[in-house]
Amino acid sequence: MKNVSLDDATKLVETAKNKAEEIEVPMCIAVMDAGANLVAFERMDDALLASIDIAQNKAFTSVTLKLDTQTVHEVSQPGESLYGIGGTNSGRIVTFGGGFPLTDGDTVVGAIGVSGGSVEEDIEVAEAAIDRFAEL
Amino acid sequence: MKNVSLDDATKLVETAKNKAEEIEVPMCIAVMDAGANLVAFERMDDALLASIDIAQNKAFTSVTLKLDTQTVHEVSQPGESLYGIGGTNSGRIVTFGGGFPLTDGDTVVGAIGVSGGSVEEDIEVAEAAIDRFAEL
Amino acid sequence: MKNVSLDDATKLVETAKNKAEEIEVPMCIAVMDAGANLVAFERMDDALLASIDIAQNKAFTSVTLKLDTQTVHEVSQPGESLYGIGGTNSGRIVTFGGGFPLTDGDTVVGAIGVSGGSVEEDIEVAEAAIDRFAEL
Amino acid sequence: MKNVSLDDATKLVETAKNKAEEIEVPMCIAVMDAGANLVAFERMDDALLASIDIAQNKAFTSVTLKLDTQTVHEVSQPGESLYGIGGTNSGRIVTFGGGFPLTDGDTVVGAIGVSGGSVEEDIEVAEAAIDRFAEL
Repeated sequence: MKNVSLDDATKLVETAKNKAEEIEVPMCIAVMDAGANLVAFERMDDALLASIDIAQNKAFTSVTLKLDTQTVHEVSQPGESLYGIGGTNSGRIVTFGGGFPLTDGDTVVGAIGVSGGSVEEDIEVAEAAIDRFAEL
Repeated sequence: MKNVSLDDATKLVETAKNKAEEIEVPMCIAVMDAGANLVAFERMDDALLASIDIAQNKAFTSVTLKLDTQTVHEVSQPGESLYGIGGTNSGRIVTFGGGFPLTDGDTVVGAIGVSGGSVEEDIEVAEAAIDRFAEL
Repeated sequence: MKNVSLDDATKLVETAKNKAEEIEVPMCIAVMDAGANLVAFERMDDALLASIDIAQNKAFTSVTLKLDTQTVHEVSQPGESLYGIGGTNSGRIVTFGGGFPLTDGDTVVGAIGVSGGSVEEDIEVAEAAIDRFAEL
Repeated sequence: MKNVSLDDATKLVETAKNKAEEIEVPMCIAVMDAGANLVAFERMDDALLASIDIAQNKAFTSVTLKLDTQTVHEVSQPGESLYGIGGTNSGRIVTFGGGFPLTDGDTVVGAIGVSGGSVEEDIEVAEAAIDRFAEL
């Protein structure tokens, strides 16, 4: 596998959406491919409008840095090594959790970004999709 | 019905995707709500990357102008009444076909934008979704 | 008078709104001062969302070029002297009617921009405000 | 009530303006609807020009995050959960007080943003409008 397909992406969105419904928090869910281009996106009814951008850019951040965004949160703090990285890439780097790379072994083949709840909730929903991806 | 729901939007995307598969042209399909905020998006495998933006902005154009984008194509030509409208709204107005408002009687409740093929193909795919919306 | 005050601007918006109600077309109405900075804006219920940007940028165009925007429409056509001007100023120059400078004798002291109907309707509504400004 | 009307918005702007005059600080006041689209805006004479953008984006922030902006101030600090959120949404998220959602019971139906004074003054003026909204 070299790249996330639409078929993969819709399964990940579906899985994330099911988890978000289970914890009763409306979310935005975005999947990007290895080229940092959007494959699929869904906004659940009543999800925060700010999350349309944030979910996509969590995915962008994870695929372009090959990092989950809670790691970016740590390394972007004042005094830390990548302080200020949030201002790069025209402001598309998100510095808090909810974005994860999708990997095929060692290779990053895409990313998922989730936004709409607390950071912990976003991570929980994204991780459900990551687990599903391992089974595809 | 006052606004497109995610449930509506995923049905429209599915219908458009089926039509795009039938004519064998990979497409990007976007649905926005009445406030011009993205609800659902899918990019079929091998669809043009430029279409990620164009599909979304065809939907943006149709919901914010309450017009299909082939009408915008006509009125934005040199010498016509809205010449130059494509440069407004930070370049988000698309001046060729493939975007349609979704209406509930007289009220615009959202829009769909399709991009990836010829304008005629984009329109054909979007119209399949419009027909489906009338039945929801 | 050197600059449009908020008191002036709200009178102009009120006058334009009354005219828009009279012709039964919901409009966006914006007034900028001589420094091309927004003073007052109103969006009537059900007015086109694209008009939020267009009304403001018609005012921007008229105060920064000291021209009404139907004149800009003429001079920006292919082959005409200012062809391409719509792409300058980060896309904020609008090339169709509905924007007018506000003048105190020869001096431009601000501008009004109206959007939401046909170009003719936008001009009619803006001109009602221009007439009112002459009496202030 | 599902969305802020222009009639509501102009009452809120009027109330905020009266409070700003009472405390003798010129302000910019913006009201957005539930879709994060501008409904009404006024800039008082001598108000800070930077506040034209800030007032609108405080409203944008409050409606898209369903939070008042002093809460965003807290959670966006270094080390806090949403550190860096101010860089998302193309820089439209404001991370200091003066923006408030407008709610109809539990539903966010719009937002108000006030800018021009100290954060405390901005909050005081916005809260006068919030109190008024409860009576509409």
